[in-house]
Amino acid sequence: MTIIVSHPHREKTDWWIKQLQALLPNWTIRPIDDPGDADAVTYAVVWKPATGAFLPFPNLKAIVSLGAGIDHVLADVELPRRVPIIRTVGTDLTQRMREYVALHVLRHHRDMPTITANQRERHWQQLVVPPATGRTVGIMGLGNLGGSAALTLAALGFETLGWSRTKREIEGVTTYAGDAGFDGFISNCEILVCLLPLTEATAGILDAELFARLPRGASVINAGRGQHLVEADLVAALDDGQLSHATLDVFHVEPLPSEHPFWSHPRITVTPHIASLIDAPTGSRIVAANIERFEQTGHVDDLADATRGY
Amino acid sequence: MTIIVSHPHREKTDWWIKQLQALLPNWTIRPIDDPGDADAVTYAVVWKPATGAFLPFPNLKAIVSLGAGIDHVLADVELPRRVPIIRTVGTDLTQRMREYVALHVLRHHRDMPTITANQRERHWQQLVVPPATGRTVGIMGLGNLGGSAALTLAALGFETLGWSRTKREIEGVTTYAGDAGFDGFISNCEILVCLLPLTEATAGILDAELFARLPRGASVINAGRGQHLVEADLVAALDDGQLSHATLDVFHVEPLPSEHPFWSHPRITVTPHIASLIDAPTGSRIVAANIERFEQTGHVDDLADATRGY
Repeated sequence: MTIIVSHPHREKTDWWIKQLQALLPNWTIRPIDDPGDADAVTYAVVWKPATGAFLPFPNLKAIVSLGAGIDHVLADVELPRRVPIIRTVGTDLTQRMREYVALHVLRHHRDMPTITANQRERHWQQLVVPPATGRTVGIMGLGNLGGSAALTLAALGFETLGWSRTKREIEGVTTYAGDAGFDGFISNCEILVCLLPLTEATAGILDAELFARLPRGASVINAGRGQHLVEADLVAALDDGQLSHATLDVFHVEPLPSEHPFWSHPRITVTPHIASLIDAPTGSRIVAANIERFEQTGHVDDLADATRGY
Repeated sequence: MTIIVSHPHREKTDWWIKQLQALLPNWTIRPIDDPGDADAVTYAVVWKPATGAFLPFPNLKAIVSLGAGIDHVLADVELPRRVPIIRTVGTDLTQRMREYVALHVLRHHRDMPTITANQRERHWQQLVVPPATGRTVGIMGLGNLGGSAALTLAALGFETLGWSRTKREIEGVTTYAGDAGFDGFISNCEILVCLLPLTEATAGILDAELFARLPRGASVINAGRGQHLVEADLVAALDDGQLSHATLDVFHVEPLPSEHPFWSHPRITVTPHIASLIDAPTGSRIVAANIERFEQTGHVDDLADATRGY
């Protein structure tokens, strides 16, 4: 009974091994590059595993993603599709995401980027914006994270819209679904938040065509995945005024390379993939509990659907 | 039946006259420096009236403050104390304040000042902060605005404390009152929000002694009045690390003079008194309705107590 851990950063691999060992004393926990008896490996706890990383382990019962998304696992073209993937969500991740969405929607709503720029110029300018009750905000993606974020925005007073692949009902939120519902949703979003899972259908969804359907001067927050965004289309929409601002937490390449133009674009706020950074001690408790539950019952709440992609 | 309007900016005086005239067609509405028959003036709608401004009007029934605070009216040493003062609050002002408090508490909580500074340096640094459920925030002042802000913070997940002169009960908020309750309150606030009214008792309350009682590294948000803050004490507490950051919406002199050191202090965020800037069309409806109600009944909900000071 061995659990292997794979993380791009060696010190994080070591940290997870130590944490999980303390929580699961009856298990052997080892790094993926020093697994011991490969046949004994039944669980893999991973963030961005290498292509073919799972091939040496024929007896895997489940792969545990260290995050809510599983795209970083599905990216492995050699992934054994029969192995279930367990997402790591929990109330902690959900709480952090609703904080991030509330903070950045409020920041766009109250035009903090302009207030910050004014401070640098020692310029006192009392911008008048409508109250949140007069502002329409839309969330794309209404899973655990998006649903909680939508409720949070509605509670703050925003006119809140939500869009998802299949119809969801959320109290106080006007919801839309699928292609048929997209135009009614997108044409009203003054502030758009992307919390979609990354799938073939959603990759590149934040593109020129979508931006053109938003009300002029809208702003965009992407806390989904970098691959949702067509970067050149965003810059073009910001530069011609169709969009007023973008806040991006995720990027095609992370860390965002230091030469990337997003760092210095006056209408882009860069946050370093921290919207819902998992709190490691809490995360390790969730991971350990999920492994124990899956081992005993063959099921956990946060089981992903590899066919669906999330 | 004349209503006079007094505002430091001529164009705003004219705007208010026009708005109120449309809403109160049976009244004569004039600027304070051209009031017509002074004996006919029964209401004064004011923001920062001049000293002695009300002396020419012996038949004033009420003074309407264009804001939630009345300190700018009480500052007039010649103020006829017999005249009731009506505050302008309403759901719009309350909504705006809870947005401001939510935005800036979340901004401190998630350390956006550091993230913004990192963006300028093209520096990718994934700061880990606790979730809001592990963060204690305190609000000083639990009137209409403070009470609503406290509820909003609690709903966002923060461990929320409140302090006021007299004890208030707010669901989900741990409340303290008076001198006896102050230490239990202040010693736990990682983020402190001042929404107190400005009175003799609260002027200068944000001073070195208070900062020293906060947990080390705490941050402060002042959306009360500039006079709550001892400016030199704030700079000293920031510079020695007792405080990590301050966000200030109000100042001793407004607009904040361009040579003021707050503009360029790396740990001070300046917002130009916009926390709860009244939305003029909404505000004028509230003012007009309050005048009509007071004229008919001699009472309104937002009647201030000049003896108490708010």
